[in-house]
Amino acid sequence: MELEKGMVSIIQIFHKYSGFKCKLKKAELKDLINNEMNLGQFKVRDADLLFADLDQNGDLEIDFKEFIALIAMVTSACQELFVPNNS
Amino acid sequence: MELEKGMVSIIQIFHKYSGFKCKLKKAELKDLINNEMNLGQFKVRDADLLFADLDQNGDLEIDFKEFIALIAMVTSACQELFVPNNS
Repeated sequence: MELEKGMVSIIQIFHKYSGFKCKLKKAELKDLINNEMNLGQFKVRDADLLFADLDQNGDLEIDFKEFIALIAMVTSACQELFVPNNS
Repeated sequence: MELEKGMVSIIQIFHKYSGFKCKLKKAELKDLINNEMNLGQFKVRDADLLFADLDQNGDLEIDFKEFIALIAMVTSACQELFVPNNS
């Protein structure tokens, strides 16, 4: 069940960096991105912009629904790379 | 990099069932759900309702953006199960 394993990994990483508080602070989001996502070194300014974009309810924390929106964005951006010669 | 592996699994499953066409037909979506997601046996009526809900652009196929919305929904629904005694 690769799909389920994939979804569980996403949940576990979120909880790992949020300390099971179900919300990520900006520093926690930055650590997660720097350690778990190959997006190159994430500067403070990048983290600020991304954080503001993700924090839809403006509570200065990223809940799971806001976090999964980031995952959906990144995954959607990458998925075409997996199509043989992008036919 | 568990998070990246998780995202790659989601992409690979989508391509596996869409035959790298980048779009899932209703039957392909039903197969994917029945084989890859532990949601119990998915009846035709369930598939019809879900399909109509996911098919935001009404082209009678599910593209990756519509598919990842399903993944985000299911993952969000499950994530609290991973919080120790849901504190």
